[in-house]
Amino acid sequence: MTIYDLITKKKHGEELSCDEIKYLVKGFTDGSIPDYQMSAFCMAVYFCGMTDRETSDLTMAMAESGDTVDLSAFGELSCDKHSSGGVGDKTTLIVAPIVASLGGIVAKMSGRGLGHTGGTVDKLESIPGYKTELTPDEFMSISKKCGLCVCGQSGNLAPADKKLYALRDVTATVDSIPLIVSSIMSKKIAAGSKNIMLDVKCGSGAFMKTVEDAKLLAEGMVTIGKMCGRNTKALITNMDVPLGFAVGNSLEVIEAIDVLKGKTKGDIREVSVSLASGLVASLKGIDADQAKLLCEKAIDDGTAFMKFKEWISCQGGNAEYADNTDLFPKAKIEYQIKSTHEGYISHMDAEKIGLSSCELGAGRKTKTDIIDLSAGLVLSKKTGDFVKSGDVIATLYTNDESRISRAEEVFVSALEFSEEMPEEMTLVIDNVG
Amino acid sequence: MTIYDLITKKKHGEELSCDEIKYLVKGFTDGSIPDYQMSAFCMAVYFCGMTDRETSDLTMAMAESGDTVDLSAFGELSCDKHSSGGVGDKTTLIVAPIVASLGGIVAKMSGRGLGHTGGTVDKLESIPGYKTELTPDEFMSISKKCGLCVCGQSGNLAPADKKLYALRDVTATVDSIPLIVSSIMSKKIAAGSKNIMLDVKCGSGAFMKTVEDAKLLAEGMVTIGKMCGRNTKALITNMDVPLGFAVGNSLEVIEAIDVLKGKTKGDIREVSVSLASGLVASLKGIDADQAKLLCEKAIDDGTAFMKFKEWISCQGGNAEYADNTDLFPKAKIEYQIKSTHEGYISHMDAEKIGLSSCELGAGRKTKTDIIDLSAGLVLSKKTGDFVKSGDVIATLYTNDESRISRAEEVFVSALEFSEEMPEEMTLVIDNVG
Repeated sequence: MTIYDLITKKKHGEELSCDEIKYLVKGFTDGSIPDYQMSAFCMAVYFCGMTDRETSDLTMAMAESGDTVDLSAFGELSCDKHSSGGVGDKTTLIVAPIVASLGGIVAKMSGRGLGHTGGTVDKLESIPGYKTELTPDEFMSISKKCGLCVCGQSGNLAPADKKLYALRDVTATVDSIPLIVSSIMSKKIAAGSKNIMLDVKCGSGAFMKTVEDAKLLAEGMVTIGKMCGRNTKALITNMDVPLGFAVGNSLEVIEAIDVLKGKTKGDIREVSVSLASGLVASLKGIDADQAKLLCEKAIDDGTAFMKFKEWISCQGGNAEYADNTDLFPKAKIEYQIKSTHEGYISHMDAEKIGLSSCELGAGRKTKTDIIDLSAGLVLSKKTGDFVKSGDVIATLYTNDESRISRAEEVFVSALEFSEEMPEEMTLVIDNVG
Repeated sequence: MTIYDLITKKKHGEELSCDEIKYLVKGFTDGSIPDYQMSAFCMAVYFCGMTDRETSDLTMAMAESGDTVDLSAFGELSCDKHSSGGVGDKTTLIVAPIVASLGGIVAKMSGRGLGHTGGTVDKLESIPGYKTELTPDEFMSISKKCGLCVCGQSGNLAPADKKLYALRDVTATVDSIPLIVSSIMSKKIAAGSKNIMLDVKCGSGAFMKTVEDAKLLAEGMVTIGKMCGRNTKALITNMDVPLGFAVGNSLEVIEAIDVLKGKTKGDIREVSVSLASGLVASLKGIDADQAKLLCEKAIDDGTAFMKFKEWISCQGGNAEYADNTDLFPKAKIEYQIKSTHEGYISHMDAEKIGLSSCELGAGRKTKTDIIDLSAGLVLSKKTGDFVKSGDVIATLYTNDESRISRAEEVFVSALEFSEEMPEEMTLVIDNVG
C-alpha cells in the first residue's frame, strides 16, 4: 500500500478500505506521509467525495489518533452539544444546565474561539473565579457531583484532525462535506459522550449559507455519529441574524443567565430549548414534544438556573454574579448606533455583526490576541423590526475608544432596510436523526 | 493575490489570468509557494482542466523560468522534433539528418533516458568519440556549419517544469492533459526552435494507450505551440509494437544507419520520413506529399547519410562506424528466444519488450544506473508474422549472463498468438496541425 495508490484510487472515484484509511491517517499523523501528498488527496476527496463507510472510518481513525475521554462511568447519560458556530450563540450556557437539571451528565471539553467572539470557555472566564483548566480527576468528579462540567481542552484530542485541518485550511480543501463531518465528529467521538446534539447553523452568519448545504452536513454528521456508536441528532437553525441580542463574552453570559431566569424569551430561548429537548428525549426515551415541556418547566420553575449556579460554584466561580448580573464589569465606553433610515430592517448580516463585535475587542483575529471580555454589542432591533430615524439599533461596548468608528462602519454595512415588513424567518429549520 | 485564492478559483472551474499563472510559477519556483499548495492546485487542474489560454500562459511562464536557447540566428530554419516516448524509437537519428540535408537546422538539446533504453544522447554515445557535452559556442557553431547538432542538455532549461513534474510524479497528478502539454511544450519553447514536430506515440508501449487520448494530447500541444509562436505539428503514430527491430542503444544506432543507407525499410523508415516531411513541408512551404518525395530522395540518393556522417564527425565521432557498423562492439552474450507456439503473433506488448531490453542492461531503472550500450535485443518477428515452433523470435544481447533469464521471461510475457492473421496496424494514425 502506498499513498500514491490511495490518491490515485480516490481521484478515480473509488472507495478506500478501512485499512487504507487507517494507513492514511497514521502516516499523515506520524509524518511519513508528507503534506503535499495529503493535500492532493484532500482535493481528490473534494471532487469525488467519500462514502459514509469511508467517512466513518476516517472519523474513527482520527478520533483514535490521540487521547480519548472515557465517560463510560456515566453509562448512557453523558451528553454533548456542538454548534457549527454562529454569532451570538450562547446556547451551551443554557442547554447544559437544562439537560443536567433533568438527569443528563454534560461533561464537556470546549475550545477557545477564533473569530467574532470567544468560545464557550472564554465566555465562562468572564465569571470571576471560574476555573477552565481542570485535571482529569477534577473534571470527572465535578461531572459526577454536579452533572455538569465545562473545561478547556486538555490532552491531545484527535491530533490527526488538528494537523489535517491546518493543512486543509491553507489548501482550499475545507469545504468538503465528508472532510468537515469527519473533522467535527472525530473530536466529538474522542470527547466521549454517548448522546450528541448538533446545532448546524445556516445563513449569513454561518459556514453553511444555504439550507441544502446545512442539511447535507447535518445528515452526514448524524449518519457518521450513529455509525460510530453515538446517539446523534442535529437541528438546523437560522443564523441569518444573530441569536439573541447580545454578542460578546460577558454580555452573552448575562443574556444566557437572563434566559435561565425566565426573563428573556425569543429566539435564544427557543433554540436552546429545542437543542436541550433532543438530548432529554434521548435520555428519557420520550418524544421531543414531551421533552420540550420538561425543558420549559426546568426554566420556569428555576431548576435549570439552580443547576447553573451549582455548576459555576463547583468550578470555582462566583455564583453571585448569576443572581446579580450587574456585578459583571461594564466596558468603559458605551456607544449607541442610531438609525439614519426609517423602515423595516429587512436583513442584518450576522457575520458582519460578529465582525463588528470583534472590532470592539470581543474576539480574536489571531490565536495570541487577548480578548476584552466586557466588549461587544447589544442589539435593540433585529431583522423584521420597524425603525424610525434616530432610533437606537444597537449599543456598542468597548474599553478602547479608537475601535468605535471601525466597528460602527462594519455594523452599519450589515443592515438593509425596506418599506415592507420582511417575511418572518423560521428559527428551527429542520431536525435530523 | 494569494495561492489560496488561485486554488479556490481553479477548484471552482474558473479561468486564471496570465498574471495569476505567472505568480503561481514564480512562487513555486522560488519556493514561496509550498509543495502542499501546489499539489492541491494540480489536483484541481486534474479535475477542472485549463483553457488553452491558461495552458499557453503556463507553458510560457515555465519556459521563461530558467535559461532559454536563442536560435534566432537561424531565422525560420531551426527545427526540433520530439517524441512522447516509445520502444525502439530511434527516429531522431534519421529525421535530423534528412531535415538538415534539405536545408533545415536541427540544433537540439536532448535528455538522457530513464526507462527501457537510453535517450538519444545515450544512443549517440555508443559512437566512439561523439561529444555530447558542448559549450554554447560549440553548439551554435556546429549547428551553423553542419545544420545539425545534438548535445546533452546544459544550463537550466525550464526549472519550474522540472520541479513541478517531480511533484506531480508523487501526487498522482501526471495524467492531466494541460499539465502534460505545458510540461513538454515549456521545454520545447525554451529549446528555441521555430519549427516543432511532435511524435505522439499511442498504444501498449506509450504513455497514451488510446487514440482518443493521444489525439487530445497532440491537439493540445499543437495549439499551445502555435499560441507560443512556434510552427508546431504532430503525428500520432503506433506504439503497440516496437518501432523497427532493434531495441537498445548501439543496436538502434546501427538500425538508424541502415535506414539512412536505404538498407532497412518498413515501419521505422515510414515513420521517420513522415516526421521529416512535416518539417520539410514547413521549411519549404510545400505540401506534405511533395515534402515526402524530397525526404525519400534524400535517403535514396545518399545525401541524408552523408549529412549523418558529417554531423558525427563535427561532434568528434568516428564516422567510419557509420560506413561499417560491424565496428560497433558486440555484447559478449547472444541468446536466441525461440517460439514454443505455432501461429500468428497477434500482439507484442511494446512496453514489456522495452522492459526486457532494460533487464538486459540497455536502460536505467534509476538515474545513477550505468547503461550497457551494447545490450538490448533485435526482433526477428513482429506482430502479424507467422511463426512455427522453434523459430527465432528475437535475439537478446547482454554482457551479463545472469540477466538473460529474467529478460526472456519478460519478453515471452509480451507475446500473444492466434490462429488467424491479425488485422494490419495503421502506422501513422493521424496528423494534427
